[in-house]
Amino acid sequence: MSITVGIQGASGYTGGELVRLLARDPDIEIKFVTSQRFAGQPMSAIFPHLTSGPDLVCTPLNDLSGVADCDLVFCALPHVTSMEVVPEILQRGARVVDLSADFRLTDKDVYQKWYGESHKASQLLMEAVYGLPELVDRSKIKNTRLVANPGCYPTSVLLALAPLMGDILIDLNTIVIDSKSGTSGAGRSPSQGTLFSEVNEGFRSYKAVGHRHTPEIEQGLQQLSGEKLNVRFSPHLLPQSRGILTTCHVRPNVEKSGDEWQNLFNDFYANEEFVRVLEPGNLPSTNYVRGSNYCYISVIPDLRTGWLVVVATIDNLVKGAAGQAIQNMNIMLGRKEGAGIEQLPLFP
Amino acid sequence: MSITVGIQGASGYTGGELVRLLARDPDIEIKFVTSQRFAGQPMSAIFPHLTSGPDLVCTPLNDLSGVADCDLVFCALPHVTSMEVVPEILQRGARVVDLSADFRLTDKDVYQKWYGESHKASQLLMEAVYGLPELVDRSKIKNTRLVANPGCYPTSVLLALAPLMGDILIDLNTIVIDSKSGTSGAGRSPSQGTLFSEVNEGFRSYKAVGHRHTPEIEQGLQQLSGEKLNVRFSPHLLPQSRGILTTCHVRPNVEKSGDEWQNLFNDFYANEEFVRVLEPGNLPSTNYVRGSNYCYISVIPDLRTGWLVVVATIDNLVKGAAGQAIQNMNIMLGRKEGAGIEQLPLFP
Amino acid sequence: MSITVGIQGASGYTGGELVRLLARDPDIEIKFVTSQRFAGQPMSAIFPHLTSGPDLVCTPLNDLSGVADCDLVFCALPHVTSMEVVPEILQRGARVVDLSADFRLTDKDVYQKWYGESHKASQLLMEAVYGLPELVDRSKIKNTRLVANPGCYPTSVLLALAPLMGDILIDLNTIVIDSKSGTSGAGRSPSQGTLFSEVNEGFRSYKAVGHRHTPEIEQGLQQLSGEKLNVRFSPHLLPQSRGILTTCHVRPNVEKSGDEWQNLFNDFYANEEFVRVLEPGNLPSTNYVRGSNYCYISVIPDLRTGWLVVVATIDNLVKGAAGQAIQNMNIMLGRKEGAGIEQLPLFP
Amino acid sequence: MSITVGIQGASGYTGGELVRLLARDPDIEIKFVTSQRFAGQPMSAIFPHLTSGPDLVCTPLNDLSGVADCDLVFCALPHVTSMEVVPEILQRGARVVDLSADFRLTDKDVYQKWYGESHKASQLLMEAVYGLPELVDRSKIKNTRLVANPGCYPTSVLLALAPLMGDILIDLNTIVIDSKSGTSGAGRSPSQGTLFSEVNEGFRSYKAVGHRHTPEIEQGLQQLSGEKLNVRFSPHLLPQSRGILTTCHVRPNVEKSGDEWQNLFNDFYANEEFVRVLEPGNLPSTNYVRGSNYCYISVIPDLRTGWLVVVATIDNLVKGAAGQAIQNMNIMLGRKEGAGIEQLPLFP
Repeated sequence: MSITVGIQGASGYTGGELVRLLARDPDIEIKFVTSQRFAGQPMSAIFPHLTSGPDLVCTPLNDLSGVADCDLVFCALPHVTSMEVVPEILQRGARVVDLSADFRLTDKDVYQKWYGESHKASQLLMEAVYGLPELVDRSKIKNTRLVANPGCYPTSVLLALAPLMGDILIDLNTIVIDSKSGTSGAGRSPSQGTLFSEVNEGFRSYKAVGHRHTPEIEQGLQQLSGEKLNVRFSPHLLPQSRGILTTCHVRPNVEKSGDEWQNLFNDFYANEEFVRVLEPGNLPSTNYVRGSNYCYISVIPDLRTGWLVVVATIDNLVKGAAGQAIQNMNIMLGRKEGAGIEQLPLFP
Repeated sequence: MSITVGIQGASGYTGGELVRLLARDPDIEIKFVTSQRFAGQPMSAIFPHLTSGPDLVCTPLNDLSGVADCDLVFCALPHVTSMEVVPEILQRGARVVDLSADFRLTDKDVYQKWYGESHKASQLLMEAVYGLPELVDRSKIKNTRLVANPGCYPTSVLLALAPLMGDILIDLNTIVIDSKSGTSGAGRSPSQGTLFSEVNEGFRSYKAVGHRHTPEIEQGLQQLSGEKLNVRFSPHLLPQSRGILTTCHVRPNVEKSGDEWQNLFNDFYANEEFVRVLEPGNLPSTNYVRGSNYCYISVIPDLRTGWLVVVATIDNLVKGAAGQAIQNMNIMLGRKEGAGIEQLPLFP
Repeated sequence: MSITVGIQGASGYTGGELVRLLARDPDIEIKFVTSQRFAGQPMSAIFPHLTSGPDLVCTPLNDLSGVADCDLVFCALPHVTSMEVVPEILQRGARVVDLSADFRLTDKDVYQKWYGESHKASQLLMEAVYGLPELVDRSKIKNTRLVANPGCYPTSVLLALAPLMGDILIDLNTIVIDSKSGTSGAGRSPSQGTLFSEVNEGFRSYKAVGHRHTPEIEQGLQQLSGEKLNVRFSPHLLPQSRGILTTCHVRPNVEKSGDEWQNLFNDFYANEEFVRVLEPGNLPSTNYVRGSNYCYISVIPDLRTGWLVVVATIDNLVKGAAGQAIQNMNIMLGRKEGAGIEQLPLFP
Repeated sequence: MSITVGIQGASGYTGGELVRLLARDPDIEIKFVTSQRFAGQPMSAIFPHLTSGPDLVCTPLNDLSGVADCDLVFCALPHVTSMEVVPEILQRGARVVDLSADFRLTDKDVYQKWYGESHKASQLLMEAVYGLPELVDRSKIKNTRLVANPGCYPTSVLLALAPLMGDILIDLNTIVIDSKSGTSGAGRSPSQGTLFSEVNEGFRSYKAVGHRHTPEIEQGLQQLSGEKLNVRFSPHLLPQSRGILTTCHVRPNVEKSGDEWQNLFNDFYANEEFVRVLEPGNLPSTNYVRGSNYCYISVIPDLRTGWLVVVATIDNLVKGAAGQAIQNMNIMLGRKEGAGIEQLPLFP
């Protein structure tokens, strides 16, 4: 079996990560890669770590001539840019995993409110499936032409809180989410704020209110719980390149012992390859999952105060982007779900 | 004028920081330094960065012969060890700024519950003054023999939330405090968990529930508000050496505009040299205060959800330890409060 | 085909790296792992990143009962400890890749001089093959019972300088080697010097003269050149976890243009899967090879002064340890040389 | 006494460092600061860590109206820009410490060769004094209008090798200098290569041949030795913000014991406040001098090979730039040489 894929937007960190993971997969053939800034350049010049990968030269974004040869195209483009090109790719017959924010929100008005742009392909919003495999009906992913790959923060939050949502075990009006991300989430474009000299020894708060992943988190939790809600969400920038760690502080509306909370989470993810609920006494660290598609979760009741703490960590470029995109591709194309993304984490 | 001081426990990071700050102060003379592990060694061997500082050789902890020559002794010892030696120092006539946890909690039963040890000098608990100058009656600091220097996390939390406490502007049952600290807070003793290889690219959660600074935070907020309360508090370990950044998520019980919250904080700290309320649009970074005694605070209303976010950052070794200790010393001895600790932060 | 292996000393970083790489190899079965400090503990407790790996529990070092089931045993033990156990393993019929220094030096007196211990298994020194596949006769590796896996610094140095040695194109008395290593090379045992707080923002010189890898480097260069020589070698400790970058400053005794030097290196490594000679204008960075078995090399003539600079980088835990050990195993057992170690580097 | 100064180019890291150090000096008044990119903005907006410093708003580079009020102007501008403005500043009567490369090289042809620009103020080259106080005749610094503040790499190299130069104790044709610098040396302008994600865990070689500090190093060594020479010099980029550590490998042409080399260096710097020769057994780390004007040096003979290793470390922004500029100012204006720059290093 051979699967043919293309990558739109291959010169960002997510694009590089897609190539890293796909290039060693014996069943995958990368037919084309595109880049606006680096059109005409080989991937090995853009990313020296890919020197031993396949010979790939970036074509311009608007060159869609290779799409017809592909079973599936990954779009790792900025938002807005993505919705300008996805309809055309679908029309040419390839299926799409879109890694931008453009098809994640089901309501085009919510999109416009948070992203400041009117949606240019809203006809696809009904069709797009939110690709968080552990939490959605996998048959929908299997059968759609268009998967909206979740954001990195939302992936960590939704996996952390999902076990609490179905039976609404917590107060939906007191969800506090405090997230921390490595700098690769800010992309590879030069900016003063992400220079090494500014970031090292310089942990900081950013977008303490109003981060664009907020509506995606709320939409996901609403779908899981069936209830309207909003969340208190603040992200922070870590002095490290990879990794997201999210700490959720929530208030249970039922009484459970530590063991019961633990069992609830264990059972919820019992059949999931990529989610690990840590044993009591262990807490997640971003370098336990680095370079891998795993999500590690701890659930800790604060018996004294009646709160519950759930901590989750992922690699923002893998489970938070490229790895999850491949996981979705595997489901769409009927492959083993973990094919090509089963590497163990790199530690230290 | 010349002030004579001694330092008990000079070989830890806090001890080194005290020497760094005191050694260049023309009005201070360090009469002795002690260390259990490094007795007999010069400070320049323990801390090569102090090579150009005064010639100081560590004597053993239990050698109190130098106390009689001192106006004031800083105790930078581990908890328990400190309460074993402080009474004797006071008896020999020196005043004390104690940087351990031993005299911070006013209730010896609370101490025993959280620290697992019965208090050995509880007769001093009434007398000890909690030395957070911006938030307590400075005349009490001025007149006491014994100042309990606040913990690093509590300093950041109490400065962040104090403006909201006097009139109880927030729901006291929904205080969520998510703190992040550099590794110097874990001390200089070798341990696997704080090795560079374990920490770099390895942001992590630790003590997600039950950190010992929790009762100190609650005691401080209770004194400020006059009400019983408890807090949801989780610390995290940053891949950086210095700095604490604390994000408080709280629920106001009054309606205020962004400007009004800003003005409230501005007014509260208008006369404080070491606390800076950042202008709207700016958020704190740990490297804005590194190496200095400053605390930077931002207050951001989340108008959509009705929450309020307060972010504060300090250098855990300065405003969170040695710098604040010197600030207390200055008040106790009638010096200008900022004498010797007015260095601007080191950036980058 | 199924290969059975054991790992002696699995709780250090090199041991963890062996498990990471071997655990996902469909043709490999790990029969046992041992650890002195952590006997009785599962690998997932020692290394949480291996939670999704095979269920392995450490047995004590001296429990060799599993050896009989193994085709090959990796010894990732400290020096001295290794030579105490390797003879027994061989006797029980397994072949050995030894990652310690114990069988690298062919002369037991040189060993004693640099390691301060008399050799306890010198009868094996003749038989042991130095396993740097790109530079030795691979048939020797294939046919031996015992491979001495090269040190991390020597691997980087010998790959950098080998193309210059055969025809002795440089002055053998003016070889200056300035190496820099990440902290994982110092191991996982707690020590003050490798604490995060000591290392971050704290690049340093260590063992500026007399590092134990010096005789291994000299032996390797002597074997390549057929001449006696010594080298000026100084290592340094980087504020990063993984990676070695070695800068060699040498004096050619022939005149060549930049292109000629480049071609010399290109030709030398033309058929090597794991060595990449970078195009002129590019220079190595440790994160171009992180997590992979690749070595990147640049050769740059300093035409103005007549010196030649050769820079090489490897991941100290992969090509400098576990990856190269597996490469040797593959050769010994007749597998494809790159089997199981062809992952592309992890960047960023 | 009050000294009035201005700073041309205050928005770079060096400019920020000048303000940090000068702002707390009771005898200094900063009359103006300029910036091209940030004209009209307050320093506290450009550098939040200076929020508690003096109120200073950047004026444009070409606004020299404030010069007449100044005793001395620091020029922290890029090369070429500096030589366009320095003559005018001198003409308006202020003395100048220029931190660019424009007045360091005495030969305008050498300047043109290495910097690719013809010199626009070569009439000042005779007059400019190279301001490395420990190594030049201080009376020349005292009496000149124009000091060329040394480059960061050359400062570290010249202090390391000066004790060997006067009597030419080493082979001048075999000087190998391997330097490593933090990222702040690359400035604050956004660039892909200095993004955190690119640099962390990514130690690298850059400008392995042909770095522009090479002729400055050679000129300095020639002036010290009285002989023509050239040097093998390669810099590297460290994953840390501050600090330079330079390792010099040289060949003595005299025989000396370790003690004799040590004494030679001790004696050479016996009266220097800012240079510390470490005791045998200790080696420099960049975080031993961070934030300070100190230089730490170790000298280690490699008795086995006959080479000598000299390692030196400085903070590139202090002794390598702003601190040394203030040291020069102090000499020029007759102040105590260490005034305002005697802070002990910040560790950790």
